[in-house]
Amino acid sequence: MNMQSMWEDSKIAEHPPFPNVSESKIKENVLPQLNQWALVNGLVMQPTGSKSNDSRVAPVTLYPTPIPRTLYNEAKDLQKHYNKLYASIARNDGNWLSNEISKINDANFTKKLYEMYKRVESKQAIKLGVFRSDYLVTKDSKEIKQVEFNTISVSFGGLSTKAGEMHNFLNQVGSYMDDSDSFYDVRELPNSESSVFLTRGIANALAVYQPDPANSKKKENTLVAFIVEPNEVNIFDQKLIEFNLLRLYGIQCIRLTFDEVATKLEYSKDGNKRLILKGSGKEIGLVYYRTGYTETDYHNESHWKAREFLEASYAIKAPDLSIQLSGAKKVQQLLTDDKILSKFVDDASIRKSLRKTFVKIYPLDESELGKQGRKLAMETPEKFVLKPQREGGNHNIYKSDIPKYLSEIKKEDWNDYILMELIDAKENTENYIVRDNELIKEPIISELGIYGCILFDNQNIHSNEFSGSLLRSKIVSSNEGGVMAGHAALDSMCLV
Amino acid sequence: MNMQSMWEDSKIAEHPPFPNVSESKIKENVLPQLNQWALVNGLVMQPTGSKSNDSRVAPVTLYPTPIPRTLYNEAKDLQKHYNKLYASIARNDGNWLSNEISKINDANFTKKLYEMYKRVESKQAIKLGVFRSDYLVTKDSKEIKQVEFNTISVSFGGLSTKAGEMHNFLNQVGSYMDDSDSFYDVRELPNSESSVFLTRGIANALAVYQPDPANSKKKENTLVAFIVEPNEVNIFDQKLIEFNLLRLYGIQCIRLTFDEVATKLEYSKDGNKRLILKGSGKEIGLVYYRTGYTETDYHNESHWKAREFLEASYAIKAPDLSIQLSGAKKVQQLLTDDKILSKFVDDASIRKSLRKTFVKIYPLDESELGKQGRKLAMETPEKFVLKPQREGGNHNIYKSDIPKYLSEIKKEDWNDYILMELIDAKENTENYIVRDNELIKEPIISELGIYGCILFDNQNIHSNEFSGSLLRSKIVSSNEGGVMAGHAALDSMCLV
Ligand SMILES: Nc1ncnc2c1ncn2[C@@H]1O[C@H](COP(=O)(O)OP(=O)(O)OP(=O)(O)O)[C@@H](O)[C@H]1O
Ligand SMILES: Nc1ncnc2c1ncn2[C@@H]1O[C@H](COP(=O)(O)OP(=O)(O)OP(=O)(O)O)[C@@H](O)[C@H]1O
Ligand SMILES: [Mg+2]
Ligand SMILES: [Mg+2]
Ligand SMILES: [Mg+2]
Ligand SMILES: [Mg+2]
Repeated sequence: MNMQSMWEDSKIAEHPPFPNVSESKIKENVLPQLNQWALVNGLVMQPTGSKSNDSRVAPVTLYPTPIPRTLYNEAKDLQKHYNKLYASIARNDGNWLSNEISKINDANFTKKLYEMYKRVESKQAIKLGVFRSDYLVTKDSKEIKQVEFNTISVSFGGLSTKAGEMHNFLNQVGSYMDDSDSFYDVRELPNSESSVFLTRGIANALAVYQPDPANSKKKENTLVAFIVEPNEVNIFDQKLIEFNLLRLYGIQCIRLTFDEVATKLEYSKDGNKRLILKGSGKEIGLVYYRTGYTETDYHNESHWKAREFLEASYAIKAPDLSIQLSGAKKVQQLLTDDKILSKFVDDASIRKSLRKTFVKIYPLDESELGKQGRKLAMETPEKFVLKPQREGGNHNIYKSDIPKYLSEIKKEDWNDYILMELIDAKENTENYIVRDNELIKEPIISELGIYGCILFDNQNIHSNEFSGSLLRSKIVSSNEGGVMAGHAALDSMCLV
Repeated sequence: MNMQSMWEDSKIAEHPPFPNVSESKIKENVLPQLNQWALVNGLVMQPTGSKSNDSRVAPVTLYPTPIPRTLYNEAKDLQKHYNKLYASIARNDGNWLSNEISKINDANFTKKLYEMYKRVESKQAIKLGVFRSDYLVTKDSKEIKQVEFNTISVSFGGLSTKAGEMHNFLNQVGSYMDDSDSFYDVRELPNSESSVFLTRGIANALAVYQPDPANSKKKENTLVAFIVEPNEVNIFDQKLIEFNLLRLYGIQCIRLTFDEVATKLEYSKDGNKRLILKGSGKEIGLVYYRTGYTETDYHNESHWKAREFLEASYAIKAPDLSIQLSGAKKVQQLLTDDKILSKFVDDASIRKSLRKTFVKIYPLDESELGKQGRKLAMETPEKFVLKPQREGGNHNIYKSDIPKYLSEIKKEDWNDYILMELIDAKENTENYIVRDNELIKEPIISELGIYGCILFDNQNIHSNEFSGSLLRSKIVSSNEGGVMAGHAALDSMCLV
């Protein structure tokens, strides 16, 4: 019997959506197991102010959260199409992307990115998109709706795998049952392959990079540079990818802050702007950003210079500015117009599948739709979230805060925002968030993230892959729910 | 070309015994790499007083320490003979063990163990020895000399593997060189397989255990019980074995303190004294001690009762009392008498190899040798260490402290001690100990531990294996150098 038929033939045991373990058993038996597994296996973070030789268990849910198998498969199947769509946008054919981004006023961030984009020509034609498309499952559990599409510094690909393994472990050792048996059939708990698949995405890119043939250092010595913040709470999520690059592909990585980019890197002497690590003479083949996605990541002008230095280089960028700009919330709004979507996606049935995941998003400009948006923002704000062109959380304006907020900014800046319908998401009340060793039982909403990697240039797509998944659960009462901020937790799926 | 000939044909690059990295580079580049690797991969401990969701990097050396390949191979090859020797002693043929142990007065510990041993008959004939034979390399690097042979609760089998992997990682990413290349050839840095081999030793034992055929719970549900201290700094060393049992063999484990043994376990109703986990009805096939080796592990009489309850049971014990008693320092002393060694080892050439690792050990009794020992203890104490029948460190009396110590105890208790020649061990001055993120550069001495597992009963040896290695390095100025106490660190070998 092959695996497929095994799957179909056996019936997965029926059980309630969540285990029902008493709080006293959780505290006595389950939390120690959870903590010990997490601390040995790297499901950890480094809270601000803690010592560099200490770690703490990352916020996680106690149980996996049920997600309909069909919806997970739908999101998974869509990923290659989404990857391709955003790659097409990044190519800036007919200057569509430049035109749209040029309309944004935001002088502190988007404008700066855009001007650098216009100014700088990269020596490298190939670029890597490492994406994550985020969805919420609707209240009726029948649909997934896209929250946003991230094109830079997508996080939790490392820890997501660990969270799933941890839930699997607790299930296997009987922590979810009173009699120490398993609660879930293993087939309900898929491995999240993100920590391996994202690694592969990066390795695929480095494999096409052409190091200087004149250089005595061999191709195997070409490095990946992680561009990072100096004090990163979520550092171990990044290290998991870094360690996997070494373990699975023999690829060495170096972590550099923007400050270090300035002091430790130089261009090759041949005019080709190869990125060279001073001293060792080693070549950096790929620049992978885990910072640089928001205004405050650039602490001063020299950080902007460092970005430009990297952007112009021969290294493959993940992402370059064109990819980063394609992830603007404004682009997401524009794509809800089928005329625009058609520019990038020929196939009507693919367009249909993509559109199925959209909710209504309005501009707030002088167009007809913009006027409609302005009206809705003022009259029924509780149905909406207002989003600026920003990434990384804590920038959005929710519901009743919207009218006041809009009235306080200049009207010519309204176009910098999009007005997005709130997704009425499925809530669960039986899971726990475990944070700082405390059990939090509040209604949660789970956001499904699908990772994807696409390697492309203006002519070709070199590879295009689904790269694993993430489930994060946030407390309903928190609008955003950052994991490292403590309002959300890493979760994993129980497929139902 | 096969691996063997590859090995012989290629020359391992010559280099100094230790890398020479500047302290500023160590602090800036190497310590962050070391800490991050350790925290993600479980090379950690849980210091007293820290929270159960926090961990800290375990004390480790910065570099691997050179060990002559021939000496490592010698120790490795001896392990099966040592395993067999101690198994033979534990069989108590001709009451040799009982006779010798009965002469020890030590009312607080050895006597209690011995009386329980006489009193209790185990329902289980098969027993598992999980051993570690410890050696020092002599100053001239030509010999290994045995420090002691441990027969209960041998630790660091989990973390030893991690320490080696960590050194390997640092070497691979170029932390040991200025130009970010490797300092060592990988073939110089053997993997310590202890975390996998000790797991196999335990799994082999569980595989021969016969669970109650009448019990509906299947054989796959037979558990291993780790008997542990309630607050264990070195918990993750144990968890690594536990996780490997599950990952590699699907074997589930339960951690129990002596208090919990009393409340959570019961004998089967059939009179066979099968160990049953109350509630679940699951059977415990193997009891693995990570406590119980010293007086203070038994906090009160009920802990002694718990030990007896386990000892009498049908579960396989690792170790049972006969094995534990065989590890008495007294036995080690007696084996230095070739007449006694011949009782247990027929083969003269094996005896010769074993004896090669012995240093002089004297009793302090009324025998001729004992009188010699008494004289030496008083006249040249600086050449000796005085050891009571104890395990776990901090019980020995060193050098000039010996005469005063002996003069203060009753003469009839002198027989409870052995007087052992101090091994003049090889010192290294170029390695660092990294503890609490601080660099300690003092002369160190490295102790090589060889693990072994032997499964046996009075008739047969079911399996007998070498189970990996450990290198621990202590600061010379500390007599003992406990790793968790902070005077020593986990190390790994560079074979030279
Ligand atoms: N349309 C929506 N309906 C319901 N909730 C939403 C919606 N849009 C955003 N949210 C909530 O707000 C959070 C943050 O929004 P969004 O992801 O768009 O912002 P961001 O700044 O790009 O954050 P990040 O990139 O860090 O995820 C989401 O994770 C989700 O919980
Ligand atoms: N003969 C010796 N020569 C040199 N050093 C010795 C000798 N015997 C013991 N030591 C040192 O003292 C330490 C403790 O001794 P030993 O291992 O015999 O005690 P223990 O109480 O059994 O400790 P443990 O079981 O925790 O290792 C050794 O690790 C070694 O550093
Ligand atoms: Mg988001
Ligand atoms: Mg985002
Ligand atoms: Mg010892
Ligand atoms: Mg000992």
